[in-house]
Amino acid sequence: MKLITYSQNGFSRAGALLTESNQVVDLNYAYQAQLQAQGKYRYEQIAEAFVPAEMTAFLQGGKESIELAKEAIAYALENEGSFKHKLIYAYDEVKVEAPVPAPGKMICVGHNYREHILEMGREIPEHPVIFAKYANTIIGPQDDIPFFPISEQLDYEAEFTFVIGKQARNVSEEEALDYVAGYTIVNDVTYRDIQRRTLQWLQGKTVEGSAPMGPWLVTSDELTDPSGLEMVLTVNGEERQRTNTANQVFTTQKLVSFLSTLMTLEPGDVILTGTPGGVGVARNPQVWLKDGDVVRIEIDKIGALENKVAAVKVGASV
Amino acid sequence: MKLITYSQNGFSRAGALLTESNQVVDLNYAYQAQLQAQGKYRYEQIAEAFVPAEMTAFLQGGKESIELAKEAIAYALENEGSFKHKLIYAYDEVKVEAPVPAPGKMICVGHNYREHILEMGREIPEHPVIFAKYANTIIGPQDDIPFFPISEQLDYEAEFTFVIGKQARNVSEEEALDYVAGYTIVNDVTYRDIQRRTLQWLQGKTVEGSAPMGPWLVTSDELTDPSGLEMVLTVNGEERQRTNTANQVFTTQKLVSFLSTLMTLEPGDVILTGTPGGVGVARNPQVWLKDGDVVRIEIDKIGALENKVAAVKVGASV
Repeated sequence: MKLITYSQNGFSRAGALLTESNQVVDLNYAYQAQLQAQGKYRYEQIAEAFVPAEMTAFLQGGKESIELAKEAIAYALENEGSFKHKLIYAYDEVKVEAPVPAPGKMICVGHNYREHILEMGREIPEHPVIFAKYANTIIGPQDDIPFFPISEQLDYEAEFTFVIGKQARNVSEEEALDYVAGYTIVNDVTYRDIQRRTLQWLQGKTVEGSAPMGPWLVTSDELTDPSGLEMVLTVNGEERQRTNTANQVFTTQKLVSFLSTLMTLEPGDVILTGTPGGVGVARNPQVWLKDGDVVRIEIDKIGALENKVAAVKVGASV
Repeated sequence: MKLITYSQNGFSRAGALLTESNQVVDLNYAYQAQLQAQGKYRYEQIAEAFVPAEMTAFLQGGKESIELAKEAIAYALENEGSFKHKLIYAYDEVKVEAPVPAPGKMICVGHNYREHILEMGREIPEHPVIFAKYANTIIGPQDDIPFFPISEQLDYEAEFTFVIGKQARNVSEEEALDYVAGYTIVNDVTYRDIQRRTLQWLQGKTVEGSAPMGPWLVTSDELTDPSGLEMVLTVNGEERQRTNTANQVFTTQKLVSFLSTLMTLEPGDVILTGTPGGVGVARNPQVWLKDGDVVRIEIDKIGALENKVAAVKVGASV
């Protein structure tokens, strides 16, 4: 299933994208419709409990909610006009937002591809390097990347990203994938000079709007193996980064296990697994993103995330 | 006003501590009672809108909610038995939790006291060094600090902490204090070897339960000047850290302004302003926290945060 958050008339709600028909099904309303048809008076409350419209809340229901959502989609497709609310939209009738707009944690992994480690002049780490972005960075696949006039060194970082689907603490590598709800793409947009002006990277990583995410979350029952996926980033059509998740030093399984020895991972937590070689700062000559540039990241079995860079004028409302 | 989050019979709710009488007033119920006495049928909903029981939601109401809460406290003291819910508790009838248990962001400042910078062998930074802890670290003033068997180097860090009270973006130093809801204490408990095994500190900083916070949030109308406050940390009564917030390289005002140039600060965001000299790792010989140690941090005009270290056994449920 391809889970999205879509918005329409000011409401943001969880949906599923049906790629063949290019339709968006509202999961909560579809389940409400099905429950009502079964004669459940409390259909609204039952749906709020098991298939809520907010994505992090939906993911808290784990595999049970995923299965209920699938059945509800099947019901909606057979009974499209049966409910007071619209159940199915054409893709271009809605705005697609980041699939997980409000994660509890957003954890980033640095130095996770051999060639990127080497181009940055660093050594293969014994332990994963982790750092944070806050959720204020998240924008959707149809949003522009704001380029605030606080730096001239805006850089891209293509990142294969997984989302937690079940509370995880001290989980083994063998069990790890059972704790993953699904996979998506994040561009870990970085203000490179701000990142590097102190020892800790956070300040160059968590600037407003610097984490385009999407276009959807492919559930882990559909994408069962996170290794061996080709990832390509282009700027205005020109290839800048290319790797395969098989080149990761720390796999999804290792990262779930490692992080869960430190902290409790919760449903909806978003983990960016690091970027490969080819970032702007490491090129010769260095090259930075500029107003109007289009950055596209494509990953096998997920899809493509494409955002335009839009300079924010000094003094503009932010 | 001293804002707390207290729990009783499984409910966690915002309250105010009256230090002279050692009583806790439930803010939301006090306001409900006042509204009901005014003949408002929708007293519950109005109170949920203006004086909600969850602290981050309460702080979103800004100064308006603080003023309403003060009036409600005065009403409760005059009309203690007037409402269906209990309005006032003796301090020892409740458990005191972290004042802000669920902040959107928890931002930490490193290298912010001259003597600590020197003891760590570093230079006075031109820009604040910032890093993150996630909210999974937060525990209350009456909780033990869990010491997980993943390290033998558990260290303390006394930190003067402020909490945002109003959305802040590109705020000047002159206006900055208007965006601060109040002040509290956090012990930035650190697994020192884990912090230092990679370039980025996050992994040694965000271990479960490593941010005791409290005992309360002193509102900024009561504590109007965050400089000139003496801060002392003791372990089992022995002084280990002592400084004054006047020694900060970056003041509260500078930090609000600096951070707001990067990101939008939201009500409830918690900012730890850094620790002074005397941490265990920098002592000669080095000294680490151990099971049963009592760590106490006292800051002028705020109070004291005291927590015991409790070793978690291997294989114990975490």
